[in-house]
Amino acid sequence: MAQSQQVRIILDAMGGDFAPHNEVLGAADAVRHFQANGINAEVVFVGREPEIRAALTKHGLTGMNFSIIHADEVVTMEDEPAVAFRKKRNSSLYIGLQQHKERNAEAFVSAGNTGAVMSHSTLILGRIEGVSRPTIGTFLPTTESYPTLLVDAGANVDCKPKHLYEFAVMGSIYVKRILGVENPRVGLLNVGEEEIKGNEAALEAHGLLKASNLNFLGNIEGRDILMGAAHVVVCDGFVGNIVLKFAESMLTFLKAKFTAFADKSFGQKLMMGVAKPALKGALTGMNYEEYGGVPLLGVNGVSIIGHGKSSPLAIKNMILRADEVVRKEVNKSIETALNS
Amino acid sequence: MAQSQQVRIILDAMGGDFAPHNEVLGAADAVRHFQANGINAEVVFVGREPEIRAALTKHGLTGMNFSIIHADEVVTMEDEPAVAFRKKRNSSLYIGLQQHKERNAEAFVSAGNTGAVMSHSTLILGRIEGVSRPTIGTFLPTTESYPTLLVDAGANVDCKPKHLYEFAVMGSIYVKRILGVENPRVGLLNVGEEEIKGNEAALEAHGLLKASNLNFLGNIEGRDILMGAAHVVVCDGFVGNIVLKFAESMLTFLKAKFTAFADKSFGQKLMMGVAKPALKGALTGMNYEEYGGVPLLGVNGVSIIGHGKSSPLAIKNMILRADEVVRKEVNKSIETALNS
Repeated sequence: MAQSQQVRIILDAMGGDFAPHNEVLGAADAVRHFQANGINAEVVFVGREPEIRAALTKHGLTGMNFSIIHADEVVTMEDEPAVAFRKKRNSSLYIGLQQHKERNAEAFVSAGNTGAVMSHSTLILGRIEGVSRPTIGTFLPTTESYPTLLVDAGANVDCKPKHLYEFAVMGSIYVKRILGVENPRVGLLNVGEEEIKGNEAALEAHGLLKASNLNFLGNIEGRDILMGAAHVVVCDGFVGNIVLKFAESMLTFLKAKFTAFADKSFGQKLMMGVAKPALKGALTGMNYEEYGGVPLLGVNGVSIIGHGKSSPLAIKNMILRADEVVRKEVNKSIETALNS
Repeated sequence: MAQSQQVRIILDAMGGDFAPHNEVLGAADAVRHFQANGINAEVVFVGREPEIRAALTKHGLTGMNFSIIHADEVVTMEDEPAVAFRKKRNSSLYIGLQQHKERNAEAFVSAGNTGAVMSHSTLILGRIEGVSRPTIGTFLPTTESYPTLLVDAGANVDCKPKHLYEFAVMGSIYVKRILGVENPRVGLLNVGEEEIKGNEAALEAHGLLKASNLNFLGNIEGRDILMGAAHVVVCDGFVGNIVLKFAESMLTFLKAKFTAFADKSFGQKLMMGVAKPALKGALTGMNYEEYGGVPLLGVNGVSIIGHGKSSPLAIKNMILRADEVVRKEVNKSIETALNS
């Protein structure tokens, strides 16, 4: 799809923990980026119009002429996704996705309640033909120059071998199209490298992956993820969610250990004074904001999900990512791969 | 059981990557510890007698009068456990466990092939009444003053809810008896705190744990493990193995990131020169050697499993741990708990 073709992206202005402020700031930065790079893309807000207008005024952005689709209700972080779907039909989430489904826009972006964004997207947009279960992948940093995509990162807790195979196909296409990796290496997350290792689902998925035309490495272990052994790490969402949250807690753990160490003596405190910025410098590659949210792969549309704590930079990158996923026709590739 | 009662511990002298050297050095340190503390315990080697004698001579330990049970064969790290069990009946692993089964010794310790130590122990010693599946737990460090026991850490990849419940019971008893935690908090590793979250096995296990007389916290998430939310973290061995190996890879990952950071400029190199020892100092709590191996819980005997790379200190601590598990009658508590 050409840069000149218009892409409309609906942004859930009520989604994140700092909505609508980070949303309008991120949207403004995204629009500036589109203009500076000659990309024909537009951001449309969905949410409570008065609040959005107030935020635009506060941040001096009234001159940017954003369109706003008004939505009275907000799905909160505490809402049960299924209940919100039934009872909050005027939410920014519901109305925004409905607009996307009716093809008044090419993509939808939200930093709101992850479970609700996933289930609303699946229920409203439907699935791409050939996809049994939409999935959510997350990038983790590696010791190599590229991140690795952990898929499924929490959308599906009980998975059949066939689902794992589909995650591998969708993850490979995403990494190829978005990161430009020509022939992404796919690893099946397991308890040993040997083909005979694993639980029942992994054993059978191994066979499906081996017989596929993916660049399948075989099994990889927990210790291989951060070493960049694979571009795409396949697992069920139960394992994926636990690994992802464990990984996120490592920095908190290290900070606590550093603080305890510094508290022991004045010399150690001085040492840590130098070590902390060094640690921070060394770990910049772990900044999730750079990756710009994650798409819900397999839905019949483009739905990008961000962290509740998304900064303006993260929001901007989610919008840029949405534009990319539309232009690079990720969904068409998935449909072709799963129906041929 | 009184300190004065004799405990005989059989040490697989051929087990670890540095066998028999680290084994004889660790055994000597353990015996010195027993003597200095008035503990009536003895270490008996099992393995190739000439090699053991040569190592004792080399390290100046011939004066310590260790007993040696000769065993011609060695189960290597590459051996398939089931094949080794059938074909290497003269291995140090087989003969040592057989001696323990015949109650010529109260415990068995090995830093050899983990899978083989597990399966040989289960097949030769049998299970405690009421135990469906023996399990292996591993301590992970936390931001609190205590470690947390992750159980199952890789012995059982496909688990029924009942197995998870048994792991919780055995883990609790182990932590209570060995770490002295009066009423260990048990958490079920899951994808969300709510009772309705999780895969099928976790959902049902939640009910069993809730109905038990364990100190059950409910579900905990990946991010709670290192924060010390629970003393015992229950999961199946598929998840446990992946989390454990992922955790072990974090240090390698950080070192690589630090090195890359230091390579960028001379100033950053200097910064890292200070930061590295500080990092090491801050992370001493992550030294697995301190924990002294892990027992295979649920077998009808005491079998302590160590890392292949076990140092003399780790071997010493495994032997001390074996003595403790015998004296504190961990197995009797497990039998009582699962049959009442």
